[in-house]
Amino acid sequence: MDLKPTKPLSGFIELLPAGQRLFDYCAAKMQNVLRVAGFSMLDLPAIERAEVLTDKDNWDEIETQMFLFQKGDTKMGLRYDGTVGLSRYVAGHLNDLVFPFRASQFSKRYRGERAQKGRYREFYQMDLDIMGINSLSTNYDAEIISVIGCALDSVAEFIGPNQVRIGSRPFWDAVFDWLELTDTQKKDVFVLIDKRDKMGDDDFAEGLRDFLGDENKENVIKSVFTNGYRDFVNKNDRLDAAIAELDDFMEILGEMGVKNAVVDLSVARGLAYYTGLVFEFKLLNHPELGTAAGGGRYANLAEKFSKTKIIGVGAAIGFSRIFAALLENNQLDLTQFEQPIDVAVLVMGNNNVAYASHVVRALRDENIATVSYLDTDKKFKNQIEYADKIRAKFSIIIGDDELKNQVVALKNMVSGNQENLTISDAIKQIKAA
Amino acid sequence: MDLKPTKPLSGFIELLPAGQRLFDYCAAKMQNVLRVAGFSMLDLPAIERAEVLTDKDNWDEIETQMFLFQKGDTKMGLRYDGTVGLSRYVAGHLNDLVFPFRASQFSKRYRGERAQKGRYREFYQMDLDIMGINSLSTNYDAEIISVIGCALDSVAEFIGPNQVRIGSRPFWDAVFDWLELTDTQKKDVFVLIDKRDKMGDDDFAEGLRDFLGDENKENVIKSVFTNGYRDFVNKNDRLDAAIAELDDFMEILGEMGVKNAVVDLSVARGLAYYTGLVFEFKLLNHPELGTAAGGGRYANLAEKFSKTKIIGVGAAIGFSRIFAALLENNQLDLTQFEQPIDVAVLVMGNNNVAYASHVVRALRDENIATVSYLDTDKKFKNQIEYADKIRAKFSIIIGDDELKNQVVALKNMVSGNQENLTISDAIKQIKAA
Repeated sequence: MDLKPTKPLSGFIELLPAGQRLFDYCAAKMQNVLRVAGFSMLDLPAIERAEVLTDKDNWDEIETQMFLFQKGDTKMGLRYDGTVGLSRYVAGHLNDLVFPFRASQFSKRYRGERAQKGRYREFYQMDLDIMGINSLSTNYDAEIISVIGCALDSVAEFIGPNQVRIGSRPFWDAVFDWLELTDTQKKDVFVLIDKRDKMGDDDFAEGLRDFLGDENKENVIKSVFTNGYRDFVNKNDRLDAAIAELDDFMEILGEMGVKNAVVDLSVARGLAYYTGLVFEFKLLNHPELGTAAGGGRYANLAEKFSKTKIIGVGAAIGFSRIFAALLENNQLDLTQFEQPIDVAVLVMGNNNVAYASHVVRALRDENIATVSYLDTDKKFKNQIEYADKIRAKFSIIIGDDELKNQVVALKNMVSGNQENLTISDAIKQIKAA
Repeated sequence: MDLKPTKPLSGFIELLPAGQRLFDYCAAKMQNVLRVAGFSMLDLPAIERAEVLTDKDNWDEIETQMFLFQKGDTKMGLRYDGTVGLSRYVAGHLNDLVFPFRASQFSKRYRGERAQKGRYREFYQMDLDIMGINSLSTNYDAEIISVIGCALDSVAEFIGPNQVRIGSRPFWDAVFDWLELTDTQKKDVFVLIDKRDKMGDDDFAEGLRDFLGDENKENVIKSVFTNGYRDFVNKNDRLDAAIAELDDFMEILGEMGVKNAVVDLSVARGLAYYTGLVFEFKLLNHPELGTAAGGGRYANLAEKFSKTKIIGVGAAIGFSRIFAALLENNQLDLTQFEQPIDVAVLVMGNNNVAYASHVVRALRDENIATVSYLDTDKKFKNQIEYADKIRAKFSIIIGDDELKNQVVALKNMVSGNQENLTISDAIKQIKAA
C-alpha cells in the first residue's frame, strides 16, 4: 500500500517542539499584557453561517478567498478574521456585557486563497477591540495602540523594536470631496494610496494620471506625501476637523507614552470597514514581514446584527505572520526552549517502578518537569542516552540499592557529577540549579 | 435591511467572559500538569487532506460525519480527532524527535453530524500520547492514566473526583477465538459489549442471542460480567497472557498511585483503532457527562504514513464535553472569575489623560489588572457607575487636584473607603487587598 503524505497542506504551519514552545511563550506573554489591560479573552466558533461571513457591501473578494461548505441546507464557512464573529457576539450579548467592552481573541483564521511565501491559509491573529454604545472617545484608539505597543515590546527580545504609523480616513474623505472626485475616482485613488508603499513614485504618479486625468488634482494628492497634511489647513471645515483630530491624536499618543508614532497618510487599511483613524505597526528590524499589526475605528461595528449603534476601535496582531515567518527563516534563538525537561528518572527493573513513581510524583508536585523512562528492562546505557538526547538537566537513577536505602542517585547531566541524596535534598539541588 | 442572526450555529459553543475565564483557567491548570510531566505541546493544522482523514479501514462512518470541502483539485476537511494529525506529524519527523516521545495537543476538533444535547460540532479535546519505536512498555499506558488522573485532579474543585475503568482488547480477542466466533460475530458482539453500559441486562442478552444463537457461547460472554475475568484462567495460553497483562497492569497502576482504578471489560472504545489495553475516565459526581476521557494502545500508530513501526498509547480528555456542558447547566461556581479587574482608573477631563496614563502604566507594570475610562467628558457619576458594573475591586480617580498634588484618590469599591495616596502607596494597598 502506498504511504500517505506526511507534510501538511501548503500554507499550513506545524512547528517542531522547541519552536512551538517559543510560539506559545510569546503568545502567553502578549496575552498577559492584554489581560492586565483589562481585555476579556473570547473564544468564538471558527465556523460561521455563510450569510454572516459574506457581505457584498464590504469585501467583494472575500467570498472567492474563503473556505465555504454546506451541511444539510446550511451554508457555512471558516472565519477569515475575528471581527465578523465579534460583531455577532457583541450584538447578541448587549445586556450581558459592560461597555466600553474590551475584548481579545487569539485564534486561528482561514483564507482559502492559494498559499504564497509569508501568506498562510491557516494563521493566528491576536485581536483586541474596545467597543462603546453610541459614543467612544478617540482616546480609546490611542489606548489600543498603546497596548499593542506594550504587547509587542513584551517579546522585544525576539522581534526587536516596533513603530506605528497613523493614517486618517476622514482626512482623505475631506480631500476627495474638496477635489470633487467622483465615487469611482475616490475608490480607485484610495486603493492606489493604500498600495503607495509598495510602488515607486513614478508608478504612483502614473496611477493618479490614469484615474484623475487632471494635473491640478494629481498634484494636490501628491503634495500630501511631499509637503505634508498640515498644508491643507484653512481650506474648509471638514479638512480642518480631520487635521485637528490627527494632531490631537498624536498628542494623546505621546501622553500615553507611545514612542515611535508617526503620521503616514499612505496607511489606509485597504477596503476594510474602517471609518476613522487607522494605524499599522511595523517591526523595525524586520521590514520584510510587512505589517505586524493594524487596525482602526468603525463607526457602526455591528450594524448587520443590531439596531444598537456599537462604535468600535480594534486591531489584529499578525501573530503567525510574525512568529511562524521568523521561525521558518531561523531568525529566532531557540536556546532557552530546547531544554524543557528538568529531570529524567531512569528505572532499573520493573520492581523499582513503585519507588520511581513515588520520586516522580514528588518532583512534579514541586513543578519540576520530570519524565520517567519506563522501558525498565532497557540497559542503563540506553536509558542514560535517552536522558542525554532529551537534554534533561538532571537524571535520577533508581535501582535496587536506591530503593533499599530510600535515596536517589542524582546526576548533573552537564557536569557529570553524581551523588546519592534523599528525595528532598535532591529537590533542593534541582531547584537551586 | 433584515438583521443577521446573532446566535452561533447549533452545536457551536461561545461563552460569556466569566465562563470563558473558568474554561481557560482549567485548561491552563491541566496543561501545566502535562507540561510538568514532560509532554511537548503540539499545535497541528485543523485542516488535513481528505486522504489523510478518511480511511475506510478504520472508521467507516467518519466520512459522512465530517466537514469536507475542496479547493482547486485538493479535497480536504476539518480534523475530527487529534490522532490522525499526530500520526502524520510523527511519521514525518522521525529524525527530529526523541522516542519515547510525549506529545500533547489542546485543540478544536470538528464533527459535521447534526448537533444533539451534549454533542458539539466544534469542541476542544486535550490529547496526550506517548510513542515508541518498535517497543513501548505497558508501564507507559499506566503513566498516561496516572497523568490524566493528575490533570483531572488539578481541577477537582470544579469537576469533583474521577474514576478510571480498564478494559482489554486482547482479552476479548482471546475469548472470541476460544469460542470460535466468525469475524462478523466478533465485530457484532464487540459493538454490543461497547454499548452494554447503556442497555439493560435483558437487551444485552437479547443482542447476544441475535448475534450468536448458541446458549453456551452466550453464557460464556455473560459470565465475564457476572463471575469476572479470572474465571478464564487456565483455558489457553492467549487467555492466560491477556489476564496476566491485565492483573500486572492493575498492580503497576496501584504502584503509580492511581486510585479508583477498576477492571471493567465493558470498556471497549468502540471501533477505534486500539489493539491493547483501553480505559475510560468518569467523573463520579457527573455520570450524566458519560466518558470524560478515554484512550488506549495502538500497535502501529502511523502505518499509513511510515514503514517504521510506531507503538503508541494515547488518550483524549473531552475538555468541552466536560466544561462547556457544566457551564451550560450552571453547575460551576463562577464567583472567582467575575472580578477580573483590580482597578478602574477614572479620568476627569482630557487634560488629565497624560497623568492618568502614567498611573495606568505604573499599575500594569506591577501586573495589576487595570482599565482606564477614557470618555473623559463623562460625569463622575457615569464613570464610577462603570467601575461598579465591571466589579473593579478599586477605582482610582484622577482629577485636576490629583495631578497638581501628584497623588491618586484610591477608592475601595467594597468598603467605599477613599484616600489620597502616592502612586507607590496605592500600589501597596492594592497588592495587599
